[in-house]
Amino acid sequence: MQPLGVGLIGTGYMGKCHALAWTSVRAVFGDVARPRLVHLAEANIDLAQARAAEFGFEKATADWRLLICDPEVDVVSITTPNQFHADMAIAALQAGKHVWCEKPMAPAYADAERMLHAAKASGKAAVLGYNYIQNPVMRHIRALIGEGAIGAVNHIRVEMDEDFMADPDAFFYWKSELSAGYGALDDFAVHPLSLLWYLFGHVEAVVTDMVKPYADRPLKDGGRRAVENHDAATVLLRLGGGISAVLMANRAAWGRKGRIALQIYGSSGSISYDQERMNEFELYQAQGRGTEQGFRKILTSPAHPPYDRFVPAPGHGLGFNDLKIIECRELIRAISGEPSSIVTFEDGLRIEKSVHAMAQSFHERRWIEIG
Amino acid sequence: MQPLGVGLIGTGYMGKCHALAWTSVRAVFGDVARPRLVHLAEANIDLAQARAAEFGFEKATADWRLLICDPEVDVVSITTPNQFHADMAIAALQAGKHVWCEKPMAPAYADAERMLHAAKASGKAAVLGYNYIQNPVMRHIRALIGEGAIGAVNHIRVEMDEDFMADPDAFFYWKSELSAGYGALDDFAVHPLSLLWYLFGHVEAVVTDMVKPYADRPLKDGGRRAVENHDAATVLLRLGGGISAVLMANRAAWGRKGRIALQIYGSSGSISYDQERMNEFELYQAQGRGTEQGFRKILTSPAHPPYDRFVPAPGHGLGFNDLKIIECRELIRAISGEPSSIVTFEDGLRIEKSVHAMAQSFHERRWIEIG
Amino acid sequence: MQPLGVGLIGTGYMGKCHALAWTSVRAVFGDVARPRLVHLAEANIDLAQARAAEFGFEKATADWRLLICDPEVDVVSITTPNQFHADMAIAALQAGKHVWCEKPMAPAYADAERMLHAAKASGKAAVLGYNYIQNPVMRHIRALIGEGAIGAVNHIRVEMDEDFMADPDAFFYWKSELSAGYGALDDFAVHPLSLLWYLFGHVEAVVTDMVKPYADRPLKDGGRRAVENHDAATVLLRLGGGISAVLMANRAAWGRKGRIALQIYGSSGSISYDQERMNEFELYQAQGRGTEQGFRKILTSPAHPPYDRFVPAPGHGLGFNDLKIIECRELIRAISGEPSSIVTFEDGLRIEKSVHAMAQSFHERRWIEIG
Amino acid sequence: MQPLGVGLIGTGYMGKCHALAWTSVRAVFGDVARPRLVHLAEANIDLAQARAAEFGFEKATADWRLLICDPEVDVVSITTPNQFHADMAIAALQAGKHVWCEKPMAPAYADAERMLHAAKASGKAAVLGYNYIQNPVMRHIRALIGEGAIGAVNHIRVEMDEDFMADPDAFFYWKSELSAGYGALDDFAVHPLSLLWYLFGHVEAVVTDMVKPYADRPLKDGGRRAVENHDAATVLLRLGGGISAVLMANRAAWGRKGRIALQIYGSSGSISYDQERMNEFELYQAQGRGTEQGFRKILTSPAHPPYDRFVPAPGHGLGFNDLKIIECRELIRAISGEPSSIVTFEDGLRIEKSVHAMAQSFHERRWIEIG
Repeated sequence: MQPLGVGLIGTGYMGKCHALAWTSVRAVFGDVARPRLVHLAEANIDLAQARAAEFGFEKATADWRLLICDPEVDVVSITTPNQFHADMAIAALQAGKHVWCEKPMAPAYADAERMLHAAKASGKAAVLGYNYIQNPVMRHIRALIGEGAIGAVNHIRVEMDEDFMADPDAFFYWKSELSAGYGALDDFAVHPLSLLWYLFGHVEAVVTDMVKPYADRPLKDGGRRAVENHDAATVLLRLGGGISAVLMANRAAWGRKGRIALQIYGSSGSISYDQERMNEFELYQAQGRGTEQGFRKILTSPAHPPYDRFVPAPGHGLGFNDLKIIECRELIRAISGEPSSIVTFEDGLRIEKSVHAMAQSFHERRWIEIG
Repeated sequence: MQPLGVGLIGTGYMGKCHALAWTSVRAVFGDVARPRLVHLAEANIDLAQARAAEFGFEKATADWRLLICDPEVDVVSITTPNQFHADMAIAALQAGKHVWCEKPMAPAYADAERMLHAAKASGKAAVLGYNYIQNPVMRHIRALIGEGAIGAVNHIRVEMDEDFMADPDAFFYWKSELSAGYGALDDFAVHPLSLLWYLFGHVEAVVTDMVKPYADRPLKDGGRRAVENHDAATVLLRLGGGISAVLMANRAAWGRKGRIALQIYGSSGSISYDQERMNEFELYQAQGRGTEQGFRKILTSPAHPPYDRFVPAPGHGLGFNDLKIIECRELIRAISGEPSSIVTFEDGLRIEKSVHAMAQSFHERRWIEIG
Repeated sequence: MQPLGVGLIGTGYMGKCHALAWTSVRAVFGDVARPRLVHLAEANIDLAQARAAEFGFEKATADWRLLICDPEVDVVSITTPNQFHADMAIAALQAGKHVWCEKPMAPAYADAERMLHAAKASGKAAVLGYNYIQNPVMRHIRALIGEGAIGAVNHIRVEMDEDFMADPDAFFYWKSELSAGYGALDDFAVHPLSLLWYLFGHVEAVVTDMVKPYADRPLKDGGRRAVENHDAATVLLRLGGGISAVLMANRAAWGRKGRIALQIYGSSGSISYDQERMNEFELYQAQGRGTEQGFRKILTSPAHPPYDRFVPAPGHGLGFNDLKIIECRELIRAISGEPSSIVTFEDGLRIEKSVHAMAQSFHERRWIEIG
Repeated sequence: MQPLGVGLIGTGYMGKCHALAWTSVRAVFGDVARPRLVHLAEANIDLAQARAAEFGFEKATADWRLLICDPEVDVVSITTPNQFHADMAIAALQAGKHVWCEKPMAPAYADAERMLHAAKASGKAAVLGYNYIQNPVMRHIRALIGEGAIGAVNHIRVEMDEDFMADPDAFFYWKSELSAGYGALDDFAVHPLSLLWYLFGHVEAVVTDMVKPYADRPLKDGGRRAVENHDAATVLLRLGGGISAVLMANRAAWGRKGRIALQIYGSSGSISYDQERMNEFELYQAQGRGTEQGFRKILTSPAHPPYDRFVPAPGHGLGFNDLKIIECRELIRAISGEPSSIVTFEDGLRIEKSVHAMAQSFHERRWIEIG
């Protein structure tokens, strides 16, 4: 197999995460060719050059369109702010590149639809960066559910919470503008939705509430400005097969740092998980003597692939960045036409449709069916 | 102070719990007179006599109306199935007795209203058995919120889960009949509602979903019978001051045994608690250096009254029955006209109104405002 | 069965705990006669009378010898400071009373031996207050080990920690005097030793280290006084069958409140427990698929007797005082000649022999075999 | 700065871990030059070539001496079984290479001494792979202790447990041979000792017990063979300043997978940590109101460097392999003569001296002072 030529647009939080994944994927997995780090784009040419040197890219540019036209680039990592995703992804696909775009697709649903159309027209791999589904824990939970380890699932709760908007005295910034989206719904809800999709399929109906913990925030220059979106959202959901679920998202939840807490109840057992302790999960099975039934805390191990590709000893733990390495290998498999576990633009569009339905439910104060 | 003459109707789970509370309340607290255990009623006279001997009551009867007319009885503990509460409580109040009735008041709202009218007409203490609010942890959480330890509360989540209806192969029994009520809503939701009321006041609006994990259940004689109520309920709520909340109740949640999990988010901190570990809670305060901020696991101690009345050393733990002893002392204080922390029939009626509104919301598939 | 006449000497921490146990044991268990609370002794007659009224004892005295001679007293609870145990217990036994004495027996081994001799000569029940073995969790752990649930046990660790001596600025008081004993060894080590004895039998060899976290302490009148005993002790032990164990005790361990943490490793599984969460334990069994092996957190339930005598629902929790009620019932059974699970003076003497051997090991800086 | 030329000997568990660290260190940290992966040695030439291709090394060899003579190699990673460390490290140092050798140095103390002499004679960096000290948690604990956050430390407990030797039916293999070392002592104890050294300095005196959970093991060809070393060890220790400690190591501890549990008690607080949850630690400080004191669970965040080099958001978690990347950067700093946090051969020799003293203590059944 020819090495893939990689282009990277954006070098912030997720940009570095992609760069690390491209750097290590071959050494970790062994079964994919070593990617060639070809071209890196950043808004500022100095920064672009500095990051290219750090991350090991051959070329640097301040014009992402140059990168997209580079014939040595086969696949483009898009890690810029959400409002740029659509233009970049569509241009890349139209230029015949595969695309690995960070979630969500785009703030506006119509833009996300255009992205999907471009993907379909291109015939190229178009993959979204929903890396939490790549956790070996999540893969194993999916396998357990599939084999009936907790019976028929009937009820789910999922919470995603952080506290970066929790301080009422923090200055107003763009995250609180309407143009940045609904707030907790699109910042956070898409992640739990990707897990629900991965484990159970798509959402069928929702009713939503949202709140602004702080009506306004101080401005740096003095005065205050009204907050325009909602830091906390709560949603009742129905999935297929009559499964009820609750989704709670709060970016103003003091003390929560990277929490994605999942509870899954079935007819013969239950499962719980928290992303803040991403190397373990809990399983209850109504089996054996009642006097010894209890939630089992299971640590990941080489028996939960692809944990084994990272560490051959159990209980030693993967990190957040390792999830992106796993996703990168799945992407490469998708590009090669092999079976892979990824969120395509098609899956992603449906996730975003759910988010918009949630917002609509809040504004119209009623249940919304998602067609 | 004259010793109170106690009558006890019902000797099951809660009947024994009341008996133990009446037995120990004087020795634990020291500041109330020793109650006199006068009269015990049970459906069957042999059982009544056996239980009277065990629990130390002077008289036994199979006719609860005799007990209610007993001039030596000052206060009546009502611990029978819910459908009997109204008749017994009203008769007792009309006979001039104080009443300590297990929750909920009655399956039908109109009956609960009649109970409240009887209480008001009698001028006697009429108290409901919502013992979870008596936990020293809950008292301390209330004090912390009151003094602003976590700032202004803006978001709450509460879950109540057990697994006694979780086995799909268990035979159909009365708990699944419509006449037994809505299911999870009135079995469980009243407890979280009592905590929400105790900490924050009453609920203003709700939207509810409910599910039947199992559509039908086997009958002992063969065949199957359709389940008539809902084992799991999920509710979005609004409390006063724009606080959003979620209430989740599931009596078919494998692995949960006595879970009442509470999360409270405020503008400068947060609190979490789980009844399955009732002697501790977690507090996060956004204070001091960021590098050492975290949830503090706080064990109850003599500094959290009335823990000190049970054990003079910290971290040694109260049990479920101890909560009823605390409630019993609060009841005695209420009877004596002293300030007390209890759920009166008036408070309880509002709790039950919320439950009925939740059920209505489910059936009408819309938000319901609670007047 | 005739009601037992009860005498209680001492009304502090443990005195109240005994009083509550005598008060409730009949109502909780049903299968023992209601004890008669006859006589209470306290150093001060006013306090004695006040406590007798609170706890429900008929007579009060400031002279414990009067209580011991009271023909209406059948059994004497001794809950005074350790240095009084020997005289009181021996006098009570010689007066033909059963004795329920708080641990330890006596600071001096010779006094403890005299207590045992008096017990043997009297033929009466002579029982020590090692209530932690009465926890339904501990009973179940014992049963699990007995049935081979974790295979052959080969290694044990037990830690007992509190922090009441942790503050270096607290004033010197009698606990730091040599006359009060070795420090952590006799304050704490006896409890873990009672658990080891209950689960595995007696200790065969020890090597000990002890430290004084604070060399001296301030005096109330100014100046400082040297601390005379050791707040922390660590011991390597050998039990029968080549089992190795470690015992750690620290009464200056900041943050620990009532910790007795036990780890038991066997050839096919392991068990862990912490008294600060006394209603649960963890069990690992090397059974089934490796991908689902993990420590199971098991909450106590009615299936773990005698939990069922307190609460008929699982996961609702007992408290510290409930353990004493269980112990009280075991004592009554012992008095009645029924099989019972208690620590007799004979068992207790062996526990104290181990403690003295530990101290000797420290002073002689070598392993000590316990004959 | 010139890129370092890297040679890697061994491609098993730790070999891959080193390879991943060399691959990513530049992209993660930015402040070190990109290493050049020059030469890889593995016992078998086919495997060597396959691994070189996977890990991205330019040359492959089955003769590690060729690698050591390669003028393009500046630093040699030694990740072979322990008995080869001495020869390889000494040869590399004598060839003028820097050495990064996995722990422990060598089974025989004399060999470890020779390694130190070679290091001193060479003037090159000679560093051991004790990566647990590189955890941002451990760095922060060290800083907290240094600034007196828990006062003067007086007592420490450390446990290292896994279960890879826990199955009594597993076949005898080389780990149970005397030639493989003492067992738990050198497999495990060196890691806790590296943490004790990092936080508090070296050990001064020890007394040890060791056990063989299983006297013999089955052979693949039938029959059984006696186990020659000890799977579990327990040690009482004294550190400088009169600090007492306990070290427990067990490689037959069912259910423990990567446990390194640390408890540190000081005069104004305490700290606890468990490697199985390597992204958090607990801190208790005896400050503020007693009613809110408790252990704080602190998740690592960008405020705990160098976590920030991996993820800019708190609570997202590093993995085991990330610790080696940190260590690699420290190594590069050491090679460059910059301040660095590493375990040199000199520090390592002292750690191994402690291990040998522990074994001696067991065999001579007495306390051993370490000069």
